[in-house]
Amino acid sequence: MRIISADSGAALLNERFEATSIIAAVAVLVEPPYRLAEKSLAEPIFTTIGNSHELIVHELELCQALLKGTKADVVHLDMSFGGLLMEELSPIQISNISSKARSHILKILPKLRKIAADIKRVYGIEVLAIGKDSVPVRIAELTAGAHAILYAAEKAVDEKTMVCLGMPSKCYARKVEDGVVVHSLTPAEHDIAGFAADKEGVMEKVTFSELLNPCARGFRALELTPKSVNM
Amino acid sequence: MRIISADSGAALLNERFEATSIIAAVAVLVEPPYRLAEKSLAEPIFTTIGNSHELIVHELELCQALLKGTKADVVHLDMSFGGLLMEELSPIQISNISSKARSHILKILPKLRKIAADIKRVYGIEVLAIGKDSVPVRIAELTAGAHAILYAAEKAVDEKTMVCLGMPSKCYARKVEDGVVVHSLTPAEHDIAGFAADKEGVMEKVTFSELLNPCARGFRALELTPKSVNM
Amino acid sequence: MRIISADSGAALLNERFEATSIIAAVAVLVEPPYRLAEKSLAEPIFTTIGNSHELIVHELELCQALLKGTKADVVHLDMSFGGLLMEELSPIQISNISSKARSHILKILPKLRKIAADIKRVYGIEVLAIGKDSVPVRIAELTAGAHAILYAAEKAVDEKTMVCLGMPSKCYARKVEDGVVVHSLTPAEHDIAGFAADKEGVMEKVTFSELLNPCARGFRALELTPKSVNM
Repeated sequence: MRIISADSGAALLNERFEATSIIAAVAVLVEPPYRLAEKSLAEPIFTTIGNSHELIVHELELCQALLKGTKADVVHLDMSFGGLLMEELSPIQISNISSKARSHILKILPKLRKIAADIKRVYGIEVLAIGKDSVPVRIAELTAGAHAILYAAEKAVDEKTMVCLGMPSKCYARKVEDGVVVHSLTPAEHDIAGFAADKEGVMEKVTFSELLNPCARGFRALELTPKSVNM
Repeated sequence: MRIISADSGAALLNERFEATSIIAAVAVLVEPPYRLAEKSLAEPIFTTIGNSHELIVHELELCQALLKGTKADVVHLDMSFGGLLMEELSPIQISNISSKARSHILKILPKLRKIAADIKRVYGIEVLAIGKDSVPVRIAELTAGAHAILYAAEKAVDEKTMVCLGMPSKCYARKVEDGVVVHSLTPAEHDIAGFAADKEGVMEKVTFSELLNPCARGFRALELTPKSVNM
Repeated sequence: MRIISADSGAALLNERFEATSIIAAVAVLVEPPYRLAEKSLAEPIFTTIGNSHELIVHELELCQALLKGTKADVVHLDMSFGGLLMEELSPIQISNISSKARSHILKILPKLRKIAADIKRVYGIEVLAIGKDSVPVRIAELTAGAHAILYAAEKAVDEKTMVCLGMPSKCYARKVEDGVVVHSLTPAEHDIAGFAADKEGVMEKVTFSELLNPCARGFRALELTPKSVNM
C-alpha cells in the first residue's frame, strides 16, 4: 500500500515550557516497510495554539496537494475515529467524544467531508479517520518535527535570539550531514523516523542542545541558539 | 512461584493489513526470574477472528493439559479482572465492562468456572483472571507468536504462497539456530521473550522480511515467502 | 527553572509479590536539562500500604524542608490535576475523580493547601498539582527507589533475612562505585535516573538479583540477601 498522510507539529515554548504556537505542517507519502517518508511537502505555519483545531483542514489540503503528481492507495488523516471513512463521518458517529472536542470537530466537519469527497472523485481513493493507529500519521508527525527544527533555527538566526522548541511526543532529533532526522522513541518504533533536508545550511548557524520538558513527561525540547550570539 | 499461563496469538493479515484469523494457542510454565517459558504446549488453531472470544476457553484447557505432568502454584488467565479468582467470577463482578464484551464473556463464563473448579479440585491451585497485569500471560503471548511464525511458514511452503503475519503487540522476531525467538519491545520487558523450536527446519524453506503494520501502531508484521517461489 | 519535587516509592513485597509497605520518601531539586537530582533529602518511612494516601502530605513537608537553604522557582507535587495551583485546589475541581480517591483527597486537602500557602508566603513560589506530567516527580520517584534499595539492604543485613523489593514502574537498578543508580526504562526517558550515595557501604554486605514481578507487568523486583546468610 502507498499511503499519504499529514500532520502538524513541534511547538514554540515559552519560558514556562508551555506551547505557544505550532511550527510546521507536512504531508508525506509512505511505502512498505513504512519507516520513512518517500516524499514530503512541508510548510512553516507558526499557528497560535488556540487555533490548532483548524489545522486538520489544512493537513488534508496538503494531502490533496501532494496527490497531484503522486500516486497513492489511501489517505490517513490524524483524527482518531477507528479508521472510519472521512467522507461518511457524521455528527452521530462522533457523539461519544467530549462536548468541547465535538464542537470543534462539528465546525470543520463539512470542510473535511468536502475535501475527502473531492479526493475520492479525482483520485478514486478513500480518506480514513485513523489517527493514532496509523504509522504514516506518526511518520508525518516526526517529519513535521524535523522541518520544524529547520524553521525554528531560521527564526533564531533571523531574530538573533534563542528559540526553545517542544518536540513531538517520544522522539529525539539528530543532526546529520545533509539535514535533520527525528527518531521515534516509542516502543516498537525504533526504526521509524522523519527527515528534513537542510538545503540552506541553517543548522550550521546555530548550536542546539536537548533537554527534557520538565512539565510534560515524554516530550523533549531543543534550545536553538544562533552561533553569533552569546546568550 | 511456578506459574502456568496461556494465550493465543499472531494473526494472518489480508492485503489491507486486517487480521483474518488467529494462528496459534500456547500454554507455558514460567519460573523465576520470569523471562522465558520453561515448558510450553503449542497448537496451530487458525481460528477466524469472529470466533476469537471462544479462544479463552481453549487457552484454559491448554493450561489444564500442561498441568498433567507439570507442577505449578497458580494459573494466570488472559482475562483482565484485576486478579480475581476465576472460580468465583460472577456476572455482577463484570458489570463495569462494555455490554458487547460482557455478553461474550457471559457465554463462556460457565465453562471457564467449571474448568477452574476442576483445576482447583485436582491440582489444588487457583486460576486468576489477571490478564494484562501478568508477565506469564505476556510470555505466553510471545511464545504463541514464535510458534505462529513456524505454522505460518509451513502454510506458506504448503500453499506455495506469500503469507503475511501480524505479530503480537510491541515485539519483534529473530531467527536463531534452532528456532525462532520473539522479543518484547515493551518498556521494562527488554529481557522477556518467547521461543519455538523449529524441529522440521521449516524456516530454512522461507525468506522472511519484517515491516510495520501501517494501520496498527505498535504492531509489526512479517512476510513469509517460500524460497522456491518468485513472488 | 529550578524545580523542587517529592515522591515516595519502592515497596516491600510478600511471597505473592504483593506490596506490603512503602520504603522511602524523598524530595529533590532538579535543574536543566532535568535528568538527575542536583540535591535530595531522603527518609526511610516503611509505611503500610493502607496508609499510603497520607504520604502526599509528608512529601510536601519534605519539599518544604528542602526549600530551607535551597532556592527554587516552583514545587511539583505528585497529584495529577493538570498542573492546577495546589493552594487553590477546591473540592469542586476534583469532582471528576472516583469517589474513593476523592474521599481520600478531601481528608488531606486542608493540610496540603495550608502547606502550599506557607510555601507561597515564605518563599514566594507556587505548588502545582502536576503529578504524572512532571519530569521532576519522575526523578523523585527514581531517587526514592535508589534510597529504598539502601534502606532495604540495611533491613536485610540487620534482620539477617532476604528482602524482596518492588521497584517503581519501568526502571532498573544498577550498583555503582559509590552508591546505587535507578534508570528509567520509559520511552524518551533513557537519560533520566535517580541516585543514592551508599556512605555506609551497605551494598557490600548483600548480594542482589533482579527479577520481573510476575503479577505486575512493567514492574521489576530486587531480592537482597545478606552475604553472611545462606538462604
